[in-house]
This record gives sequence, C-alpha cells and structure tokens, in this order.
Amino acid sequence: MGDTGFRRELAQQLRVDSVRSSSAAGSGHPTSSMSAADLMAVLLDGYLKLDYQNPHDPHRDHLIFSKGHASPLYYAMLKAAGAITDEELLSFRRFGSRLEGHPTPRIPPTDVATGSLGQGLPIAVGVAIAGKQLDRLPYRVWALCGDSEMAEGSIWEAFQHAAWAGLDNLTAIVDVNRLGQTRETMLGWDLDGYAARTRAFGWNAIVVDGHDLDAIDAAYREAIETTGRPSVILARTKKGRGVKAVEDQPGHHGKPLEDPEGAIRELGGERDLTVEVATPDPAGAPHRFEASGGELPRWELGEQVATREAYGEALAALGAIRGDVVALDGEVSNSTHSELFARAHPDRYFEMFIAEQQMLAAAVGFQVRGWVPFASTFAAFLSRGYDFIRMAAISRANIRICGSHAGVSIGEDGPSQMALEDIAALRAVEGSTVLHPSDANQAARLTAAIADRPGISYLRTLRPKTLVRTAPDEDIRIGGSRTVRSSDDDEFAIVACGITVDEAEKAADSLASEGVRVRVIDCYSIKPIDAGTLGAAARETGAIVTVEDHWPQGGLGEAVLSALAEEAQHQPVIKLAVRGMPVSGTAAELMSAAGIDAAAIVAAVHRLSRARTHA
Amino acid sequence: MGDTGFRRELAQQLRVDSVRSSSAAGSGHPTSSMSAADLMAVLLDGYLKLDYQNPHDPHRDHLIFSKGHASPLYYAMLKAAGAITDEELLSFRRFGSRLEGHPTPRIPPTDVATGSLGQGLPIAVGVAIAGKQLDRLPYRVWALCGDSEMAEGSIWEAFQHAAWAGLDNLTAIVDVNRLGQTRETMLGWDLDGYAARTRAFGWNAIVVDGHDLDAIDAAYREAIETTGRPSVILARTKKGRGVKAVEDQPGHHGKPLEDPEGAIRELGGERDLTVEVATPDPAGAPHRFEASGGELPRWELGEQVATREAYGEALAALGAIRGDVVALDGEVSNSTHSELFARAHPDRYFEMFIAEQQMLAAAVGFQVRGWVPFASTFAAFLSRGYDFIRMAAISRANIRICGSHAGVSIGEDGPSQMALEDIAALRAVEGSTVLHPSDANQAARLTAAIADRPGISYLRTLRPKTLVRTAPDEDIRIGGSRTVRSSDDDEFAIVACGITVDEAEKAADSLASEGVRVRVIDCYSIKPIDAGTLGAAARETGAIVTVEDHWPQGGLGEAVLSALAEEAQHQPVIKLAVRGMPVSGTAAELMSAAGIDAAAIVAAVHRLSRARTHA
Repeated sequence: MGDTGFRRELAQQLRVDSVRSSSAAGSGHPTSSMSAADLMAVLLDGYLKLDYQNPHDPHRDHLIFSKGHASPLYYAMLKAAGAITDEELLSFRRFGSRLEGHPTPRIPPTDVATGSLGQGLPIAVGVAIAGKQLDRLPYRVWALCGDSEMAEGSIWEAFQHAAWAGLDNLTAIVDVNRLGQTRETMLGWDLDGYAARTRAFGWNAIVVDGHDLDAIDAAYREAIETTGRPSVILARTKKGRGVKAVEDQPGHHGKPLEDPEGAIRELGGERDLTVEVATPDPAGAPHRFEASGGELPRWELGEQVATREAYGEALAALGAIRGDVVALDGEVSNSTHSELFARAHPDRYFEMFIAEQQMLAAAVGFQVRGWVPFASTFAAFLSRGYDFIRMAAISRANIRICGSHAGVSIGEDGPSQMALEDIAALRAVEGSTVLHPSDANQAARLTAAIADRPGISYLRTLRPKTLVRTAPDEDIRIGGSRTVRSSDDDEFAIVACGITVDEAEKAADSLASEGVRVRVIDCYSIKPIDAGTLGAAARETGAIVTVEDHWPQGGLGEAVLSALAEEAQHQPVIKLAVRGMPVSGTAAELMSAAGIDAAAIVAAVHRLSRARTHA
Repeated sequence: MGDTGFRRELAQQLRVDSVRSSSAAGSGHPTSSMSAADLMAVLLDGYLKLDYQNPHDPHRDHLIFSKGHASPLYYAMLKAAGAITDEELLSFRRFGSRLEGHPTPRIPPTDVATGSLGQGLPIAVGVAIAGKQLDRLPYRVWALCGDSEMAEGSIWEAFQHAAWAGLDNLTAIVDVNRLGQTRETMLGWDLDGYAARTRAFGWNAIVVDGHDLDAIDAAYREAIETTGRPSVILARTKKGRGVKAVEDQPGHHGKPLEDPEGAIRELGGERDLTVEVATPDPAGAPHRFEASGGELPRWELGEQVATREAYGEALAALGAIRGDVVALDGEVSNSTHSELFARAHPDRYFEMFIAEQQMLAAAVGFQVRGWVPFASTFAAFLSRGYDFIRMAAISRANIRICGSHAGVSIGEDGPSQMALEDIAALRAVEGSTVLHPSDANQAARLTAAIADRPGISYLRTLRPKTLVRTAPDEDIRIGGSRTVRSSDDDEFAIVACGITVDEAEKAADSLASEGVRVRVIDCYSIKPIDAGTLGAAARETGAIVTVEDHWPQGGLGEAVLSALAEEAQHQPVIKLAVRGMPVSGTAAELMSAAGIDAAAIVAAVHRLSRARTHA
C-alpha cells in the first residue's frame, strides 16, 4: 500500500486544482471533481501504469473519464503527473487551450472524447477487449463513471458485454456522490442497489467509502486480483467533498465555487506535489495477426450481386490482405454479410449482439489501440448509436461503419427496417465520408478504400441484388463518381446512387426511345462529392434530376445542390426522394409509391423539358 | 383460471396462422411467433381487457409487441379476437395491407410501431405512467419482449425507470427462446440470470415454462396481484415450438417455414376459434388537469433573453392555459428551463433522469393516451434517442421535442455539448417540423404553435441571450419567416436563424456603412420553410448568403437550396456553416473560428459582389 499521508495531500491538491482551474475559467464542474479526488489520488499514486511522457506506449494502462464533466479533476491529475504545467492547467476552457471543457484527445494521453454521459464505459469495454483478444497485452483499463450516468442504457450494455467477454482487465469506478445536475439520482446512496445490479450483470462489485484512502486501495487491489470477470468499485462519496459551502449540497452542479480562495484555504492551500506514476511493465510487442495475402473479390459485368454481399466478401478478403482489420456486428451478420469475415477470421470478429451503442463504442475502443474496425448492422439501426458516432468524431476516431438494408428497396419488412435518414445523419458528422455503391465492384473497392481513411467512414449497402455495371479494374475512389452514360449533346443529367442507378438507367433508355439524350451519373461518393463532374454535367446539360432512396432532406439531392452552389452552377435541379411514409410491399411497388423509380425520373425530365421550352 | 384445453387449441391456431401468413407473404418471422404463442393465448383469453371493436376506449389495456418481428403472432391474435378476417390475415406484408412486416398503428388497436428492438418496453413504461399519473385509470400495459432485445440498453432504462416509478400496472413478458438471428443470446436459457438482473432493478420477476399454460396463467395472476412494483414474466420457450423441423433449431430466424403444409398438419391443422376477449372495466372518465388560464409570456423589443428561457416560460404558461400539456426532461431542466413548467405543474412534469431514450419513449407513450408531451434536453443529446424519434414518426406519434444549447454559441463546454447535427437529423424525419427561433417572443409563440402540430415537432433553443427583435404580437407561425430588414433595392439577401440573426444584422450594418444594401431574413421555420419569401428574396436581390450554427450538411443552408430549387430560382448562394471541429472558447471566438460571424457574412457578400461584377 502507498503512503496514505501523501495520498491525502495529493487528493487535496487535486481538489484545490479543480477549484482553481474552474474559477480561472469561470465555468466547469469542480464539485463533481472533488467527489472523486480520493479515488483518483489512489489510482494515480498506486495503481495506474502510465508513463505520461510516452502516451503511445502500447503497454500502458488506459484511464477513461466516462464522467467527462469532471475534467478539472482529470487535468489536475495531468498536472500532478507532470504532463502539464500549472500555467496550462489554468488555461482550462480558454480558446486555444488543449484543456477543453470536456476531455478530448487533443491533450495526450487522452484516448477519447467524453462529455456525453454513458459513453466512456462502453468505449473502455472496447479497449479492454483489444487488450485481451487483439493486442494480447496485460494493460488495464480504468473507467471513472458518474452515478447519474448509470441511468443511461449504454452503461448497461457495457456491463452486460464486459461480463460476457470476461474482461478482468477492466475496472469501473463509480463515483456515487448521489447528486445529479438538478436533484438526487434514482438510487441516491443506495450502494447495495448498485452492487446488486452490477453483480447480477456478472461483475465483481466492491462497495467502499470513496473518501477512505485505505479502503480505496484495498478495492483496487481486489479488482486487480479478480480474474474471469470485471470489477466495479462503487464508491460512496460526497459531491464537493472538502468544502462545507458545497459539500453534499444541491444547487452547485457545473459552477465554479463562489468563494474559491476560502475553499482553497479550507482544503489546506495550494500544493505542488508530483506523483511518480508507475511505468507500464514491458511485456513484449502487441500481437499481430498474420496476413495471408490475396486479392479483393471481383465480379464480371452483368452479374447480379447485392452490395451487402460484396461488402462481406471484400471485408473477408481485406482481412486476409492485412492483419489489422477487425469486424464487429450487431447480431445481424448474416444480413450485413459480415459473417463472411467472421468465418474467415474468427479471432478478429466480435459479436456485439443487439447493442448498437456498445458496438460503435467498441469500434472506437479498438481504434484507440490502432486496430482498423469495421462495424456493421442494418443502416436503420445506426440511428440507435448516432450520439456515439457524433462523439467518435470529436474523439478523432478512425472507424468504418457499414449500414445495410438501406431505403424502401428492402421491401416487405416495412419502414422500421428501412434506413431513410442515414445519409443525412452521417453527412452531418465532422470530417465524415459517406459512400453508397451501386454495384458489387464499387462496394468492394470502397470497402478497401475506407480502411485507410481517417475519421468516420460510412458505407451504405443494399438488400436487393443489383447489376454489376462497374468493371473490376475501373477507378473507383472516395470523392469519385461514375458516368454511366454520356454524350456531347446530353440534354439533361440524372444523378443517382445505389438502387436508383438502375432506375436512372431504365429512365435513360426510355427517354432515349423518345429521342431525349440524358447523362447518367452514379454518385457513389456522397461525401466528399465529385463536384467537378457534377458541375460539368450541370453546365453541359443545363438541368439535373437527382434521385435517391432516402428522405428528401440531407441526402444525395441536397449534397448535389450544395456542390453546384459551390461550383457556381445555377441550373434547374429536380430532387426526387422518398415522399410519404413507406409501408410493406415489393421493392418495385415501394419505389414507385415513393416517387423514385424510372417512371418518376422520366416524369421529372419531362417537367424540366417543358420548363426549358417555356423559358 | 380459463379453460386450458381451449387455450391449447388457441395457441396452436396462433401458430398455424403465423405459419400461414408468413408463407403467404413469402417472408416474416413465424418461428419467433411460435415461441410466444402460449404466452399470448393465455393473455388474450384470460387477462387482456380490450374490446377490439372499440380501440379508442380510454379504459382498455395496452399490448405492445416490443419484439415487433413477431407480427405474425400479433396479427393471428387480431384474427382470433375478431378484429380482422382470415382474408386480411393472409394479406400480410402485401402492398396496401394494414398488416405490415412489423406492426404499425395503421391497424388498430396498435398503439405504436415496433420493429426496432428495445423500444416497445420503454414506450410501455410511458403508457403505464400515463395510466397511473395522468389518466389515473386502472388499465394495464403488457409488453411482449424478445430475449435478444434484452441486450439493448434502452430495455434497462425501462426496467430502471419503471421500478423507480412503481409501475405495478405494467407487465413485461420476455419470450426467452434462447436463439437470436444468428446464434444463441448472451444468456441463452439462463432464466435465473434474467431473474437476478430484473429483481436487482426492482421488479417482481416470475420464471415460468413458457409452454405450460397453467404456469403462465398463474404468472399473470401474480403479476396482476403484485402491487408497488412492475412484474416481469421470464418465460423459457422454444423458438419454432410445435414444429420439429424448426423447433429450437438455429438457422430459421426470419424465414417462412420450408414445408408450411406439413407444419400446419403437425400443429393439428387450421382452426377457426374466436376468443371472447375481456372487456375493460368502466372506471369513470380519465383524469383531466384543470386549466387555470393565462397568457403566453411576452417580452419587449430590445430585451436580452435566452430562447431556452422563453421556452420554459412559455411551456409553463401553456400548461396553465391547457390541461393536456405535460413535460419531460433528461435531468437538465435547469438548463433547458423546463424547470419552470415543473415548478408550476409538478403533477404533469416527469423527471426522466439521464436516459434520453426512455424520455422520448415515454413521450410517445403519453401521446398514445392523447396527452401533449414536450420533452427537453440538450439538443446534442437528442442524438442518443434518434432511433426513437425515427420510430415515433412511423408510430404517427405527435410529440414535441425541445433541444437546448445548440451550436458553437454555447461556448466553453466544448463540442460534446454542442448540437451541430440536430437540424439535419430532425429534418430527415418524415412529416417533422423543425423550428429555430432567434428571440424570446418567437420561441414562446412557436412553443404554443407546436402543441397542436401533428407529427414530430422540434424546437431548437440557444444557451446565450439574444436581442428581442420580434414584437410580441407579430405573426410568428410554423412555415413563416421574418424579414428583419429589407428595401426595394436590396443587392443581396442574408438568410439566418437562431444566433446567426444577430450576426446577420451586424453584418448588414457593416455593409450598409459601405453602401451595400442587404435584406436579412430570419428563417425561424426551417421545416416547413417559407419558400415563397426565400424565392422572392433570391429573385429580387439576385444572390443569397445563408448562415447557421450547424454543420454545413442538412441544415438551414441546404433547406434553403432545396426551397430555391423547388421555386425554380437559380441565383448564386453561399452557404456559411460551422467548418472544422470546434473547441472550447467564448461564443464570439468560436463563431469567428467556425466562419459564421458577422465578419464571415460580410466576406461572403463581398465574394458574391465580386462575382457579380466579373459576370
């Protein structure tokens, strides 16, 4: 056991520095920091193995502040560990500072951004899985959780999965300070209630007084010594601990203290202690999976193949070509076809069951350790994890998401299974890539292309088979497009993606029979979009029809409108997209009802043609 | 107890009809239906109180199929109850049929759409709260859950909240058939594991053999007799029960049986039983809250007020004006200002803690019973419940959502707390309304306007105070806009919303000092949008700048581009929106860095001006 006296002083320093930084900022969460200061002092002094000067060390422990609003405490720990100066500590929340209101990876060794409650623990589960099954290194993962966030379902997805996966390298520390933002939590200080829940979920639960340094020490020791299952330390604490004016008082959430000088005096004044944080055990290189080699699948022109199947085949091939690719699925791998990867590379496939939030969080956790995750489910159910995708972008995470069963073309299953908002949602993610291949060769090439793409990459696949129109060696790339047909005297251009490329081609055939020449552009890369080709099409043909199996908002049509605006092209555009709530039916019936089939495209071209004649 | 022999026959009929409808459709989930047939036979015959001819009866029970893919069973129950004919049963999944692949309210008495797992139980919690605390009627709520969906965090939000709220009028029935879509669930047939978890969450857990009709009967009786807490019936069942070829076999999820005729024979052939479902007890009229009257708040021109505060004041006033308005919040009511409603109408305010999915589900549950819910949290955290919003639209639910703390203008808290994708996400919901008032009078009027709006209404509010520019009696309405300044010879138009209206006005002042006249339009209604005014502005000024505190995708700018395309206006548009990942800082610093402040607007107008000169 460490020196209790030193730890007591260290904990007070963490409190004082939390008060100082939030007072300097004029905002922040000192009271939520003070409750967990003793927990973090003991962790930092006795248990965490992390060389703060060497954040890229693969052997180091990971500490994730799931209660991201306790950032003053987190930054105070960085100072105590010598990772930042006191001056930087006091730059908290200022423009340009690495010390943002909630932690982000801008300040090493922070692995991920937190601040949306209930995300840190599921991400920690991902890092812990990486430790046990991918890196195969003995590092530990520690997650500091708030008690308010125990109300988030995602926390229970994490408890569930971690126990199922036997993650004894993971320790959750719950700072049960009883008080949320406006009131007492549902469980208050019912520590036994938390213990019963977490034990029922398969964890080793340890209840402690979160201000008893020796009890905390014993709890960490027990956590480390517990094998076969994760441990949770349920710590009874007081919010604002150490300063009478705020200790265990409601009404002080998320505010600097009113009398910081008095508070600092009450806490024993400023200190300048430095902790010698334990360095990680050198434990050999991280495990690497052998790459047996091979090539991406190819399909011949004219074949009928579903892009979701091409994704699965390409992913399996990619797994053979490179050993860093791993896959996750939300228990629909025979629908997304990630099962092909699972069969080929069972050691690198992770079944996340029907828990999309945990699936995406695990992907974020895997990439923390440099793995290249591909996570798949029905595109409609990605909406369940949208907050995790949003936060993954703030984490500067590199993850790849495949959403299958896009649009009304799935047919009989009905609207609950149809993704019609996914392009809008995924485009509206900072730095994201949004791809929607129309055929198997495109899908395979784009699957490979996103493996090295930074940020959030999204590949949208189709349930039905589509005609292979793209030659296997054609140049298919992020930011590209494919001109399916064109001539020098095209009168109109149709911009389609995915299933609507088939419809566009049918429409073009029909229009050709009327003597109307149209260009057809397969806009498989929606973000970034091929603005040059679209701008040229607008300029050369004079009018555009966009057509997509997606709501009219935020999808292909609006991406095209934005691109044309940026290209300073001002031609007429008719946007065809799904109108009205779909029902069950065949793909053809539903595309017709939605107004996105060949007939609708022909009608739109006729409207443009009439407008042109009248102009 | 009912007649076990009849129930046995009824259960077989439910199985046979599940086989028949899915075979007629060529798709569907008969095996997931067959496992729960005994559970539903006993419920229908002995416990459910529902006059299927009178679905609007306020006294009736509610049955929610959280495992929506068991729709063949659900529709077979409708037939057995005399609510549909055998002919309609066999229209399952056909275009035009009310019997969609997953249940929707198109077929009464279905309350809500299900099919995205983990949503039915949280919605049932909402209906049960309505029964106890709003309607104050003794109806019961029954939710049939699958065991696969027990992996969804939202299910645990529901378990948590229902126990906290003491919902003894709620019974969850978990069909533990052990098999998911591709494999065994995490818990398999570990019924004790489920019992331990649900008991730890505060429920009365009853473990039964889900094919023992008498045991099921006893379980329902115990559930009804249990007071003070909800009951869960954990039923050990076999998927595909009754047909050897599929019973308890993997590989048969979501497929019609291969030999339906043989299966029907094995199940004893077709039957045509009708159940006399118990009619509800007449129990007086639903409770109504008294409306004390009053008026919406008004602010004088020139005041500085945050729109989030105006929302809270307006909501509290609305609660006095009408007794059907209720409010929910995700434990941030002092930030969203729904606390003003909570204080004024404590009986109609529901604290949902940090569980956004459960909050939105409860709102959907409340409106099932005709209440007018307003649910609020930080707009960023609505992304946590996006799937619930998506499904609420399929449920044809009328709910109102207020998201506060929009955009980079929140300042120091950093990007995790900034909603920058919410307009894109909420626009991409069928039939939705998206409003973003720039001042207090607008916020108040729009809060009142959405009370009677069908579908999903979204009101986006701001953290900082803004200048009241709208006179209290001005015509502010859904679909409207406000021309802040204009003249007959405006050279450019700036279209702004929310915080950027202030910036647009500053820019207009600055441009005016250069002799450049611009029109400023406050586009507070983003969906529906005031296309007429925007089209006229484009036509009359010849060029538009849009500016929004949101990502460039799917927000105001693209809504304007779509509107102009529909209005056949083809003028140049420059879209200003947040570029790059924001950090912490002051609102002014962050708006400048994002390129959405007055200086950026002026620069954009200069660019348009130069382009015009060169053209």
